[in-house]
This record gives sequence, structure tokens and C-alpha cells, in this order.
Amino acid sequence: MTQTLFVLNGPNLNMLGQREPGIYGSLTLKDIENLCHSKASELGISVDFRQTNHEGQLVDWIQEAGLTAKGLVINPAAYTHTSVALQDAIRAVGLPVIEVHLSNIHARESFRHTSFVSPVALAVLCGLGANGYPMAIEALANHLDQGDA
Amino acid sequence: MTQTLFVLNGPNLNMLGQREPGIYGSLTLKDIENLCHSKASELGISVDFRQTNHEGQLVDWIQEAGLTAKGLVINPAAYTHTSVALQDAIRAVGLPVIEVHLSNIHARESFRHTSFVSPVALAVLCGLGANGYPMAIEALANHLDQGDA
Amino acid sequence: MTQTLFVLNGPNLNMLGQREPGIYGSLTLKDIENLCHSKASELGISVDFRQTNHEGQLVDWIQEAGLTAKGLVINPAAYTHTSVALQDAIRAVGLPVIEVHLSNIHARESFRHTSFVSPVALAVLCGLGANGYPMAIEALANHLDQGDA
Amino acid sequence: MTQTLFVLNGPNLNMLGQREPGIYGSLTLKDIENLCHSKASELGISVDFRQTNHEGQLVDWIQEAGLTAKGLVINPAAYTHTSVALQDAIRAVGLPVIEVHLSNIHARESFRHTSFVSPVALAVLCGLGANGYPMAIEALANHLDQGDA
Amino acid sequence: MTQTLFVLNGPNLNMLGQREPGIYGSLTLKDIENLCHSKASELGISVDFRQTNHEGQLVDWIQEAGLTAKGLVINPAAYTHTSVALQDAIRAVGLPVIEVHLSNIHARESFRHTSFVSPVALAVLCGLGANGYPMAIEALANHLDQGDA
Amino acid sequence: MTQTLFVLNGPNLNMLGQREPGIYGSLTLKDIENLCHSKASELGISVDFRQTNHEGQLVDWIQEAGLTAKGLVINPAAYTHTSVALQDAIRAVGLPVIEVHLSNIHARESFRHTSFVSPVALAVLCGLGANGYPMAIEALANHLDQGDA
Amino acid sequence: MTQTLFVLNGPNLNMLGQREPGIYGSLTLKDIENLCHSKASELGISVDFRQTNHEGQLVDWIQEAGLTAKGLVINPAAYTHTSVALQDAIRAVGLPVIEVHLSNIHARESFRHTSFVSPVALAVLCGLGANGYPMAIEALANHLDQGDA
Amino acid sequence: MTQTLFVLNGPNLNMLGQREPGIYGSLTLKDIENLCHSKASELGISVDFRQTNHEGQLVDWIQEAGLTAKGLVINPAAYTHTSVALQDAIRAVGLPVIEVHLSNIHARESFRHTSFVSPVALAVLCGLGANGYPMAIEALANHLDQGDA
Amino acid sequence: MTQTLFVLNGPNLNMLGQREPGIYGSLTLKDIENLCHSKASELGISVDFRQTNHEGQLVDWIQEAGLTAKGLVINPAAYTHTSVALQDAIRAVGLPVIEVHLSNIHARESFRHTSFVSPVALAVLCGLGANGYPMAIEALANHLDQGDA
Amino acid sequence: MTQTLFVLNGPNLNMLGQREPGIYGSLTLKDIENLCHSKASELGISVDFRQTNHEGQLVDWIQEAGLTAKGLVINPAAYTHTSVALQDAIRAVGLPVIEVHLSNIHARESFRHTSFVSPVALAVLCGLGANGYPMAIEALANHLDQGDA
Amino acid sequence: MTQTLFVLNGPNLNMLGQREPGIYGSLTLKDIENLCHSKASELGISVDFRQTNHEGQLVDWIQEAGLTAKGLVINPAAYTHTSVALQDAIRAVGLPVIEVHLSNIHARESFRHTSFVSPVALAVLCGLGANGYPMAIEALANHLDQGDA
Amino acid sequence: MTQTLFVLNGPNLNMLGQREPGIYGSLTLKDIENLCHSKASELGISVDFRQTNHEGQLVDWIQEAGLTAKGLVINPAAYTHTSVALQDAIRAVGLPVIEVHLSNIHARESFRHTSFVSPVALAVLCGLGANGYPMAIEALANHLDQGDA
Repeated sequence: MTQTLFVLNGPNLNMLGQREPGIYGSLTLKDIENLCHSKASELGISVDFRQTNHEGQLVDWIQEAGLTAKGLVINPAAYTHTSVALQDAIRAVGLPVIEVHLSNIHARESFRHTSFVSPVALAVLCGLGANGYPMAIEALANHLDQGDA
Repeated sequence: MTQTLFVLNGPNLNMLGQREPGIYGSLTLKDIENLCHSKASELGISVDFRQTNHEGQLVDWIQEAGLTAKGLVINPAAYTHTSVALQDAIRAVGLPVIEVHLSNIHARESFRHTSFVSPVALAVLCGLGANGYPMAIEALANHLDQGDA
Repeated sequence: MTQTLFVLNGPNLNMLGQREPGIYGSLTLKDIENLCHSKASELGISVDFRQTNHEGQLVDWIQEAGLTAKGLVINPAAYTHTSVALQDAIRAVGLPVIEVHLSNIHARESFRHTSFVSPVALAVLCGLGANGYPMAIEALANHLDQGDA
Repeated sequence: MTQTLFVLNGPNLNMLGQREPGIYGSLTLKDIENLCHSKASELGISVDFRQTNHEGQLVDWIQEAGLTAKGLVINPAAYTHTSVALQDAIRAVGLPVIEVHLSNIHARESFRHTSFVSPVALAVLCGLGANGYPMAIEALANHLDQGDA
Repeated sequence: MTQTLFVLNGPNLNMLGQREPGIYGSLTLKDIENLCHSKASELGISVDFRQTNHEGQLVDWIQEAGLTAKGLVINPAAYTHTSVALQDAIRAVGLPVIEVHLSNIHARESFRHTSFVSPVALAVLCGLGANGYPMAIEALANHLDQGDA
Repeated sequence: MTQTLFVLNGPNLNMLGQREPGIYGSLTLKDIENLCHSKASELGISVDFRQTNHEGQLVDWIQEAGLTAKGLVINPAAYTHTSVALQDAIRAVGLPVIEVHLSNIHARESFRHTSFVSPVALAVLCGLGANGYPMAIEALANHLDQGDA
Repeated sequence: MTQTLFVLNGPNLNMLGQREPGIYGSLTLKDIENLCHSKASELGISVDFRQTNHEGQLVDWIQEAGLTAKGLVINPAAYTHTSVALQDAIRAVGLPVIEVHLSNIHARESFRHTSFVSPVALAVLCGLGANGYPMAIEALANHLDQGDA
Repeated sequence: MTQTLFVLNGPNLNMLGQREPGIYGSLTLKDIENLCHSKASELGISVDFRQTNHEGQLVDWIQEAGLTAKGLVINPAAYTHTSVALQDAIRAVGLPVIEVHLSNIHARESFRHTSFVSPVALAVLCGLGANGYPMAIEALANHLDQGDA
Repeated sequence: MTQTLFVLNGPNLNMLGQREPGIYGSLTLKDIENLCHSKASELGISVDFRQTNHEGQLVDWIQEAGLTAKGLVINPAAYTHTSVALQDAIRAVGLPVIEVHLSNIHARESFRHTSFVSPVALAVLCGLGANGYPMAIEALANHLDQGDA
Repeated sequence: MTQTLFVLNGPNLNMLGQREPGIYGSLTLKDIENLCHSKASELGISVDFRQTNHEGQLVDWIQEAGLTAKGLVINPAAYTHTSVALQDAIRAVGLPVIEVHLSNIHARESFRHTSFVSPVALAVLCGLGANGYPMAIEALANHLDQGDA
Repeated sequence: MTQTLFVLNGPNLNMLGQREPGIYGSLTLKDIENLCHSKASELGISVDFRQTNHEGQLVDWIQEAGLTAKGLVINPAAYTHTSVALQDAIRAVGLPVIEVHLSNIHARESFRHTSFVSPVALAVLCGLGANGYPMAIEALANHLDQGDA
Repeated sequence: MTQTLFVLNGPNLNMLGQREPGIYGSLTLKDIENLCHSKASELGISVDFRQTNHEGQLVDWIQEAGLTAKGLVINPAAYTHTSVALQDAIRAVGLPVIEVHLSNIHARESFRHTSFVSPVALAVLCGLGANGYPMAIEALANHLDQGDA
């Protein structure tokens, strides 16, 4: 059976393209979803790509991923910096997680330098724009192939 | 076509009247909504007045305002102090925003002195009780008339 | 008419049993619910037991408790440390509240040492595992019997 | 007898128009004074409008206001962030005070986010430009009409 | 042979009843001792109940407990917040410890929010008044019955 | 020739009697001046008693004291907590200084716990109400008699 | 019957005279005790003067004072900066307390600028050397005469 | 017409020579004024040299400089570390400013390491004693010659 | 002519394989160099791979890269957290830089959560082990192809 | 007459051997005392070796040492991090002091990195286990031989 | 024999002219060296002008200066903010040192506001661009002429 | 074959004897080296004694020690407080390390109270002057004899 990875997106990422293109680039979230599916096909896996503005919804989906997926790519957006609930959810499901940010959060306001997700992530990629997503998918697939899952 | 402003209210504001009248006054949220509609009629505009206890719902509505409204009055209540997501949503839609608080938050606990919304707001009004809402609507309407929208 | 207490559970508590048993024990949330109902029967009261991953839902339920319950036992889980909205909701309804944590949060990461709920709680119990729930119910019932409600 | 409000302006506000128009707008302090007198006429009250660069002078005037005025609108400018003496003066006279800032101080340097005046003010308005003054006067007049003075 | 628990009380708890009844209630320490002995009889164990104003005496007693008791209930009172020596003593004896506070210390001054004892305690109960003691005894007895001792 | 001491009073102390009598007592500054002159007569010295709301005026007077007085009693009021200039003035003149506060500033807001004057004062007296002034005068006179001047 | 005041001295004050005379002066504690008895005779009251190096002993004596004395002068020495237990003891007995320090603690290391006793003291005197004791006794006697006891 | 520079001196600099010569040297402020006039003659410009102990007066003079001078040398002394008003005044007039300190403020107390003036100054010179003034004048004249004015 | 990227490695990375394999993996730096050359061949570019324990040497090499390379991949290791010099060097040469860390530095000691390099990097990858290097090379090559160089 | 050194041990050191052998080793305090006496015989001096759990007792003994000993070796254990009284006692007696810790306190919890004793100690040895004691004795004897006593 | 001063330059200063001309100006380090030699000729002294990217090299050179030079002008660049070693080297050689920065470091990022060199420097000049160097040389020569060397 | 220990010395220690003898004593580094060789002979081991001003050189040598020595005594001098690279190097080689400081760093500036080396050292000795070196050598040799190497 095909291996599935979840790719979860946090608040305001549905606004990509309109939202501050100087920081986030001109691609839409749909464009990024397509990049993810392409990469997944290439790797012979499948991707379940979702977005929500609700912290609780992200928690629900992480728990769902624990039941049906092999790994998780997450761009928690604003909740990166404030959500203990995401950290606990990731701990609870025990899946390998790669955290992705479109922009280099370390070059922005200081409250964006802290992540509650990073301490429980396998890896963190930021500043690679839309390409960070397929790179994260590939890295996660490699990790799973090496038998860590 | 009539210009519309969104007036969004955060968690527990539906409890006004019951909730700590010594701090928040005895008017209900319905009373405040009526004040807003009166002021809007007087200005020849319309107001879409909503309340929710969910941070994600506020983000959804701010995004909706970006599509259908000319400006936003927001009382983020408790999320004022903890929500990076609201800041990002306001940045993403690029609408002029006036932040309102019923009480003078600077005279309360120190964790209420910080706002993630203020840095992206046009103006901040606090301590004016229910009157802060129509004042914010009028100020926002004036701002829009001056051609900033 | 039978007195009702709400017992509210925050994010990821539905994962109990699977989730880090070294920290949280091997009982499931259903087991804890049963412990609560047993204790309630013993005391001749009734318990409304719920769980959600959504902060806003917890706020809604606290407000609902204000209308239909005499008191509240809450394990806010991750929202303990980040939610001003919970504090405001508890203040708004004015019910007696006992905060419960399965693990001893003071022996964990420092960001878990702070609670926005504790300053408005009647009492705080942590580290008693599942037994903390029936103990909190009994303590709350005693408190109500002493005429504080 | 006509009710009088004091409108006090702190350091460098006499430079308005010249001074950083990107932040403070192009109106002069004289223009603002005129806005205040218009609003006062409209409300049937009178306004005593003053400016000084001296902290001690502001304290003297607040004390004078305590003897001859019913309320106080103050833009303490730079002294907002450093003057305990202003706070004590306001406490000593016991008048209702509304604090006004032309710019949104929360969107500027962090040392401008703290105010020694706010904890003793009835309300705080910032970011409304020159319009903040007549709005404050009207709000203060309303407050006095409601019998708080 | 009957199992013994030590119940140790820190500085000023001998003043209960006289001391700030608004915070600590009107029961005396003798009343609390009686509650403890009742609960102990009910459980078929015995309790050694002591109070001292001396930090060093508490350390001596914790060491003594290590030789003759199965567990320890402690209300370290003021030493909660300042005593590394108590933490080290508890670590040294390796007994299960439940920390009790009459009042909800999280609703008081911020220096009372920190405990040197909590990180080495099994559980912490605060805000339950005198009832916290028998509850702690029962919880500790249960813990010991489950074979942890 | 009679020895002279300066007694300098900072901002808002001219409001004594009206100003927050719960904190500052019901005596006026004139009453305190009289207490100072009585004590001075008793000691055979003279006192120059002044008040100002201006930080710069206090600096001027401290410098004047350096030329004509033997010592200085100062209640810097609000400037206590913010004025490096007062510290430098006292250092520059090299007179013995006793700092006085009517209320116990350590029992008030935390920003009142810091004094720029204390590190260069001989002694600090607070919480003694009006009596702190004659006590400071007597202590300073004793100090001068012991040959330190 | 003669009114009694306790005068309590904390750790190392028995070393006065030997101990760092540059900071503490050349008088011994016996000399200070004599000053206290002289002042007491003069006022027609009696003084119970004690010293200990033990924090717990100070707590015991404060409690004893609550039973047999009308007021308390205390120089808590090193325990000033670390003892919550002293604060609680003073709160528990409800006696008027004046805190005395021989040296000006504000001109020394920063850890000596904080006092757990000051927030519950009536007044604080520091830097007056041995004379601070009789001054405190007189001030306390005056306070008691004014009917506060 | 001759170019004029203002040279402004803050509180207690009129005490130079008497005041702590170990830190500030033995020259008087008059000596420094003479050094400034000599340097000015040499450069064919004129200097307006002033001193005040009043923060507000410095603000007034900076505004006056904005009307009549080409640049400003300022030694704000104690107000360096506390005056937002000076920063705002300099921003408002837009003149090039060189900040001078006689002593090396970085080798003194930590509260002297922060300057509100430095962020808006062209350059900062400290530790050069009286020579810092003519050096600053020459540097400012060079700067103006290079066409920045 | 073939495009060259520099790949620079900071202190102790020459110890890879021996050094804490639990954190850094079992590959040697030579293995990583080979991965880099393979990836470079695949992309038709060349890589100059170096390691040093000297901060100054890294600065020299970054400057050299500015003359001969199109971009820079850097694992600054321990100097990440302490070297302003690296930040300045990267700013000075103006090359696009990708920062790589073998381990997830956000899951380690808090002093490893801060990077002086990140604010001037295009992107940051951490926790991907040896694979982070070829991924960074590929991302940098893509970036250069998009015409940013 | 034989020279005597005091060797003082703070709280819980009487538990050595039982207490966390992973951190403190398996020797008992009696074993350490024997090591000290052996080293003392070897050096022709005598050692007075004591342990207490009471801070005040340590202060008493330091003062006694001031009368009868030439120097002091102290392992203040938990009081290291909290006792200003120990610092003052050491200052008062003026004896040379060497501070010893069995474990390397810098590799433990951050509250163990601060010592109130170190600033007044001649030297600090930590992490040498039981051997730290005879080494400290020898170092102190050498110091005394060099004529510092 | 001619007096020699060392002029030492820290990391990345060899990049001047290329490196961020908006901050550092368009002159090269060679231009600055020439300015230094001109000024030295004018003063009849000689200058040894060097640059390195290595912290240790700067330490070596400061020690060399201690043997062969009369004083030191240093622009430590990035090492200003991080190098305790430079502070110790300057302390060890005991030469008079003037610290120079091209830009006004107080108007840049906050981590550039701290200098480990300033506390041991005679004087600090910043924001004067290339002219700061000859000014520092002249000031140092004057200082040496006044007999401090 | 003879066991070798490395003894590494950080920046400015080559200046011993000249450099601040009040803090560091009058012995030269050569004298200390001789003490080390004497102690080594006495123990039948050999010592490789080195000094450098370069952080990177220390890292190189620690790595070299990992290959050829059994243990390491290090006085990292200024790099103690700033070098993560030294910590990583020690971790990487896994040798037992004893950290030595001539002076008691805890009695000096606060930035000298922190060590990046201590958390990975076996033991820390400070304040023993030159004797700290042979003591460290002996302690390390004992440690190795006990079979830890």
C-alpha cells in the first residue's frame, strides 16, 4: 500500500500570493500543493495536503496523521511561536515531523525566533520558499526508508 | 454601493453585562451592536458585527473582511495578548484596522499590556467602554474618506 | 434536582494511554470518565465529561457551564500555559473551578510551570494521575456543600 | 458657568508640522488647538490648551487643572515613558484624564510601549492623529455628563 | 506493623486560626492534625504530625522520615520558595512526597509561584484548605498500596 | 554663625493633605515645614525649606546648598526613581544627604522600590510620615556634630 | 503595666565592632542594646533585646512578640534579603514593625537592595548606624501612642 | 554670514572643577567654553555655548538651534540616560548632532551605558576630557563642509 | 566556466564520526565532502569544501568566496552562536548563504538556539544530518539559476 | 601549639553514601572526615570536622572558627546558593576560606551555578569528590604558611 | 627615537569600500592607513597600521604593542562585542587605548551596543567615519605628551 | 609507556608576572610550567605544556590531546566565558578535563562567572594561584588511576 505523508499548513497560508509577497513569494498555496504532489509521485508515495486557521484543527489533524500517515510535514505559521498544543500533539503521536517555513524566520521579528514545534521536530527548514515543501517531503521519505519509522 | 466595515469581537465578549461589570460595564454585546448600527446609519455605511470565542474563527473573518469590507474594528479580547495569528491575518489582508478595548488594559495585569494586534493597527482606543466602538467606526470612516482606502 | 459538575479536558487528552505513558500513565480518557461517574454516583451528583482540542470550544463550554452547572473541574492541558481566554471565561462565569493535571507539571519544562488558569482557580491538583479527577470532584462537591455556591 | 477642560501637550509637540510628518502628520499644534476649540464650542464647554517642553511645568498645570477644570486631556509626548511625576500629579488631583497620542506608539520603538500615565488614565487613544484630540474632549465631556465628576 | 507517614509543617503554620483567616481559614493546626489522624485511622495507618519554624529542623525530620516512615506529606510554607536544602533532603531520602498548601499560592504574590519542593514531589495540592491534608494522606497511601514503596 | 540645612521637596508634595491621604497622611506641607522649624530651633540650627515640581530646580537648589548649607534632607518624591541628575548633583556638592519618604515606598508599586538618590545618601528613612522630617534633621545634625562635616 | 517592645537582631550582628567597621561602625551590639534601654527608660517603656544567627529563632521570637509585646523593631541582617518566613511571621502576628539597618543597604551589592520584610513593615530606617535603633523605638512608641495599637 | 554651532551642556556641568575631579578633570566649564571659542575662531565659525540643569530648557534650546544654527554639540550629562524628550527634540529639528562626554561612560555604572541621544547622533565621543569639545566642533564643521547640511 | 560554491565547516566538524555519534551521526567529514562533490557533479557545478577550527580562518575564507565563488554553504558549528565576525563577513561579501546544521539545534541547550549567521542567511536547514549538505547545495544552485546571483 | 582548621559541612551531607551515589559518590561523611584527619596529621595540623542541617548553626560555627581556628574549609551544600548569612559570617571573621563541592555544580541545575560564598572565598574546588577536602586542607595550610594568616 | 603608536583593525575592515558603503563609507582601509600616516608625520610620530580577521592575532599584536609602542588605537570591529580576550590583553599591557568605530554603533542592532573594550579604553570615538582614526591618533599623542605615558 | 597529560593555557597567560600581579600573582608562566613538570616527575607521568592566544589553536590542541594524551588540564582564560567551540572540542574528544583558574573568577566581574567549559569538565579549581596547576595534575592522575580512563 502507498505510504502517505500529511502536509499541514497553519493560519493565513491560504492567503499566499496575495499576502506580503516581498516576504512569502508569489506562489499560491495551490501551487505549493501541486509541488508536493509532483514530488510525492516521483517518490511513489502520496501526500494529504491541508490548511486551516484553527489551532485545534491542526491538533485534530496531527492526531489523525498518527493513525493513517507515516510522517508529517508541517508549516505551523503563526502557531509556531505560541502553541504548546502542537508540541504535545506531535509528542503524542510519535511520528517523524519536519517543520517548514517559507521565509527565514530568524531574519524577522524576535517573537518569530522561538518555535514550540522545533524541539520535537526531526528537522527544520526555513527560507527556502515553496521549494522547502518538496525538500521536506523527500527528506522525510528518505528518513522513513532508512527504517526509522 | 454602501461601504461595509466589519466589527469583530473576541472571546467572552458575548458575556458582557454578566461578566465583571466593575471592569466591563453593564451594557450587553447586543447593546454595543445597536450603538454600532446607529453610528453606521448616521454615517451612511453598514456594519457587519460578529463575536466568537475561537481564534481561528477571527482569522477566517479577517480574511473574509479582506474580500468584502473596507475596514475593520476589532476587540480581540484575550487573544490580543497571545495571538500572532491575528497579526498575520491583518497583515495579509492589508485593511485599515482600529483596535478597541472596553477597559483600560494598561491599568490591569501586566500580561494585558502587550498586544500583538497594536503594531499592525492604525489606531488603538481603550478605556472608553461601549462608546469606543462607535468612535472607532467614525474614525475609520473618516480615514477611508481621506482616500487611504 | 441533581447537581451537575462539568469536567472539561483540553488538547491531546483524548490520546491518553497511547501518549507518553511514562508521563501520563496507561489509563485512557474513557477510564478517567468512568472514575468520574463513579465518584459522582457516590456523591449523588452528576458529571458532564468532555474533551476538545480547540481553545475556543473550551471557552464555549465554560460559558455553558455557567448556565447549567454548579462547578467546574478542568484539565486545560497545553492551553494551561498560553490561554488568557480560559482565564477570562472562568472569571466571566464566576463558577468555582478546580484545575487538575495528571503529571506534576512543576517537574517538567519551565514553560509548563506557568498557568493562566491557576490565578482564578479555587484549587490546583497535579501529579495524582487519574485519581486527581475524582479527588477534584469530591473537593468541589464539598466546597459547594459548605454553601459557597 | 461654563465647564472647562485642560488640554496639555508635552515636549516637542510645538514642532508639529515640521517634525517627522511621516509619523506625526502635517497639521500644526495651532491647527489642533483650533480643532479642540471647535469641538468645545459644539459641546458648550471651554478648553484651556497649552504646550511646554518642561516636565515640571506639566506637573504645575495638572495641579492647576485640579483647581479650575473638570477634566484633563493630555498628550505627554516623550514624558509618557519616563515620568512618574505626571502619574503622581494625576493621582493627586483626582481628575478624570484621557491620554492621547498622535501616532500609534505601539508600532514604534519598544521604549514607547510603556506609559506611566496610562495606569491612572480613564482612557487612552493613540494613532488617530489630530482627530484624537476632539474625540478625547467629547469622550471626556460625555463621561462628565454621566455624573462621574 | 502499622505503616507510618510523616506530616511536616513549616514556619508560621502553628499560627493558623489567628493568622490571616481570609487567606488561611479559621481552623487551627491542632484541628488539621486531628483531621490527619482521623483519615489515618480510617486507612489503618499512622501519622507523625509535626511543625517547626526552622528550616534545618525540617531537613532533620525529612532525614528521620527516611529511616522510619513510608512517605511524607509536607507543607513547607515560606520555605517552599527559598529552600534548596529541602529539595536536597527529599532527594536524599528517596521517599514519595506530596506537597500541600492551604491557599492557592498561584493566586498570590509572584514570589510564591516558585517551589523548590515541587520538582521532587510526587504531587502538589494547593487551595483545598485543611482538607488538602487528609486528601494528600489518602493519595499517598494509595500510591504506596500500588507497590511503589 | 547658625548652621543651615536645606530641606528640599520634590513634585506634588505641595498637594499634601489633599493628595491620597490614605497613603500620605492628612498633614499639609506647611505643617511639615513647621515641624522642621521647631526641630531646628530645638537644635539651634536653621532650616531652608522648599518645594518644586521641577527636576532642574531641585538640581539648582542642591548646588546652592553646596555653597550655603551644611547638609541636605531631601524627599525627591517621583524623581527618586528616575533622576540621575539628582544623583550627580549630590555627588558634585559632596554634602551629607538624608533621603526621606512619607510612605513606605517598598510596600508600593515595584517601580517605586528603586532610588537613584539612595546610593549617594548617608541614610534613608521611609514610612514615618511627617515625623520622618524632624528625625532626619536631628540625625543629620548629630552626624555633623560628630565632625563628619 | 509597662509597655514592651521587642528589638530583634539577625545573623552576625553579635560580631559588631569586630566585623567590617568601615561598613558597620565600631560600636558593639551591647552598646546598641544600652542605647535602646536608655531610650526606653526615657519613654517609660521596656525593651526586650535579642540576637540570633538562626532564621527559625527569629520566627519563634516574632511569634512570641505577638503574645507579649506591643511592637517590634527588627534588624533582620542577611535574612532581610532571603526570608519569606520572616514576612509571613510578621503578617501572622499583626504587630507594627520598624525595620532597621545600620548601613545604607542601597549603597551596597544589588542583592542587598531587596527586602522581604519591608513590604510588611510600617517604616524602614537605614544608614543611621547605631542611632537607628533608638530612633526606631521612639517612632514606634509614638505610633502606638497615636492609638494604632 | 558666519556659521553658528550650538554647544549645549546638561545638568551639573556648571560644577566642573569642583565636582569629582578624579572623574571629570580639573578644568571649569568656562575653560571648556574658551577652548570651544578658540577652535571656532580657528575654523571661522561661531559657537553659542550654554548650560542648564533643566531638561525642558535643553529641549527649548535644541528647538532654537533648529532655527538659528547649523549643527549641535551636546553633552547631555545625566539626561543622556533618561531623556526621551532630548531624542525627540533632535529628531524634530533634523540638525547634525555630536554627543560628547568628558569621561568614558562605558567604564562607569551600568545605567550610564545607555544613551537616548546616541541613536539620533551623528557621532559619539567620550573619555577625551575637555578636548572632546573642540574635536567635536571640528568634526561637525568638517561634516557641514562636506555638504551634508 | 564552471560555477563554484564554497562549503565551509567550523570547529570540531573534522571530528565527525568519533564525536558524539548519538547527536551527529556516524559519517565522517570526508563522507560528507563526497556527498557534496556527487551532488555538485550532478548539478554541473563545483564545490570547494573546507574545514577549520579558527573563527578568523572562516572569515578569511568567506572573503575569498566573495572573490571566486557564487554562493556559500556554511556549517559554522560552535561559532554559529558567538560570532558577530561571521555575520559581518557574510554581509560584506554579499553572497547568498545557506546555513546548515547536522543536528536539530533547537532541540539542544538553549545557547544553541541563537545564531548570528541566520539573520544574514538566505535559508537555514537543521536536523537533516549529512543530507543537509547536498540539499543546501541544490537549493543554492536553484537560487542562483533563478537569476539572483 | 597546633594550628587548627575548621571543616564545616552543610545540609544533607550526613546522608553521603545513601544519597544519590551517581552524583555524590559512595563514600560516607565519616570516610571524608578520616581523609581530612589523615591529611591534617601529615601536615602537622589539626582539623575540627562538623556537619549540620541548620544555616544558623553554620553561622555560629564560622564565628567560633574566627576565635579558635586559622582557616576554614566549607562545603555549604544547599546553603551555597541561598545564604547571604554565610557570606556575611565569613566577611565578619576575616578568616581565609576554601569552598569545596563534591560534584561539579556547574554541570547541574542552573540554580546551583550561583554561590553566595564564592565571592568571599579564597578559592573554590568542585567536582573532585571526597579528594577535594584534603586538597583544600593542604591548599589552605600552604596559604597560611606563606604568611597570609 | 620616534614614538610609535599601533593602529589595529579587526575582522572585515579589509573589505572597506566594497562592504556596505551605506554604513561604512566609500574609503578603503588603505585610504585610512594613509590618513593615519599623514597625521603621524604631522605629529612627528610613527604609526604601525595592521588588520586581521583573527581574534588571537589581535591579542598577539596588543601584546607586541606593549613591548614596542606607546599607545594603541583599535577598531576591534565584530570582536568589540564578543571578545573578553581583547579586554584582558589591554589590561595586561597597560597601554593607553583609544577605541574607534567608523559607524555610530549605538544606532545599529542592540548587540552592537555592548563593548568589552570600552571599559578598559581611555576614550571611545564612533560615527566619525575615517576621520575618527587621525582624531584618535592626535588625541592619544596629546595624552602621551601630558605625561601619562 | 609514560602517560601524558596536556596542560593548555589560553590568551594572555603568557603575560603572567607583568599582567595585573594583584590579581594573578608574580609567577611567570614558565614558573608554572616548571611546577607542572616537577609534579609530573613526582607522579611518573609527563606533561605537554602549551599556551596560545588563539581560540582555534586551543581547539586544535584539544583534538590533538584526544589522540595522544590521557587527560587535559586547561586554563581557558578569557575564552572560558565565550567559547562554545572549546566545549564542543572537549565533548568530541571525550577526555577527562580539569579546568583551572589562577584567580577566584567568582569574586570578579559578573561576565567572568559563566564558563562554557565547566559543564563538560570533571572538576573546576579556581583561586589557588599557580598551585592550582600541580593540584589539577595530581587530581587528574588519581582519577586516571582509579580506572576511569
